[in-house]
Amino acid sequence: MKKVAVILSGCGVFDGAEIHEAVLTLLNIELQGASYQCFAPNISQHHVINHLTGEEMPEKRNVLIEAARIARGEIKDLNELNINEFDALALPGGFGAAKNLCDFAFKGAECEINADVANACRAFAEAQKPAAYICIAPALIPQIYAKGTLATIGNDADTASALSTLGATHQDCDVNDIVVDAHAKVISTPAYMLATNIREAATGIEKAIAELIKMS
Amino acid sequence: MKKVAVILSGCGVFDGAEIHEAVLTLLNIELQGASYQCFAPNISQHHVINHLTGEEMPEKRNVLIEAARIARGEIKDLNELNINEFDALALPGGFGAAKNLCDFAFKGAECEINADVANACRAFAEAQKPAAYICIAPALIPQIYAKGTLATIGNDADTASALSTLGATHQDCDVNDIVVDAHAKVISTPAYMLATNIREAATGIEKAIAELIKMS
Repeated sequence: MKKVAVILSGCGVFDGAEIHEAVLTLLNIELQGASYQCFAPNISQHHVINHLTGEEMPEKRNVLIEAARIARGEIKDLNELNINEFDALALPGGFGAAKNLCDFAFKGAECEINADVANACRAFAEAQKPAAYICIAPALIPQIYAKGTLATIGNDADTASALSTLGATHQDCDVNDIVVDAHAKVISTPAYMLATNIREAATGIEKAIAELIKMS
Repeated sequence: MKKVAVILSGCGVFDGAEIHEAVLTLLNIELQGASYQCFAPNISQHHVINHLTGEEMPEKRNVLIEAARIARGEIKDLNELNINEFDALALPGGFGAAKNLCDFAFKGAECEINADVANACRAFAEAQKPAAYICIAPALIPQIYAKGTLATIGNDADTASALSTLGATHQDCDVNDIVVDAHAKVISTPAYMLATNIREAATGIEKAIAELIKMS
């Protein structure tokens, strides 16, 4: 059975992993006959957002502990990820991918990536094991893969431009489709960068995970 | 288009709504051609559980604010629920259903139900609008419906016995199946009371929501 490492960035679209995307990723891995293990970096969230009001809350939360909610407790510290145990990698989106895994949400093309995230993602790239980056998570692609690697975040011109500045070759993509760099073995899909409901998000994620398992 | 009210009980299996069940509920409502509005009671969680360790954390969190994470911010206070705007009701499980919506997790057959939850659920029952109770949420059924109403929480003998003491007629049920009380228009399915993975949980929830929309 193929095994997929899933990197989560917290629990909630505005400060962590987008919950629908994360669950749809896990569901589709199993529907493809594969299994998963969730991971998250053991670091503080950049901040905590009240998802009812959109305002920042005076709290501290840990990315690994909050991501454990999505994983029903079955999650490991990202620095324990052993590339040899896995066939593929998946990163759901949510602002956590751009606030906790890297600081793209604040610095755009000047962003830096968390060291544990960089180590894990680069290990999959170097081993030529496939990876799927969903929603805003493709902001990490130019920091992991060679210059010119194909990636999509949908069709937002400013975000696409920042990806290009970082070194990716951005392709516009519909919500129900995927962009594949066959050489780098990296897949991306817009999900909630474009989706207006969960059904739309599900279409692209289903396609991305099917391609991920096929490639692995 | 049919519209379903979904009552959430927080965000995370051990102290709130079970995230996979909640997302699968929302997904299947849309896949059935219907739409949803999420609600949650505006109350403190019973407690906050660190989902990595299983231990209680010295924090206070609000059920409505945390449930907003699952709803991507699109959620309303349960006391704003107007029965006339909805065709059906769905309650995902997770310990939040038995710790925040009522205190079944602590008091079993002696449990009491939150007043806003009771008002909302009884309004659907009295209007003969169908409702789906998932996982441990069927613990609410005997407090909403007439004595003898059919319900399932899977096959756990102690939990089933507590439901029977409360007045329901418990039927054992496989993870991929549902129990329907056609007269009361109430559906239940075990989901993570029995499921060992998300794919199993998805089978019963898909069937429950399909029946819910068909009945409405």
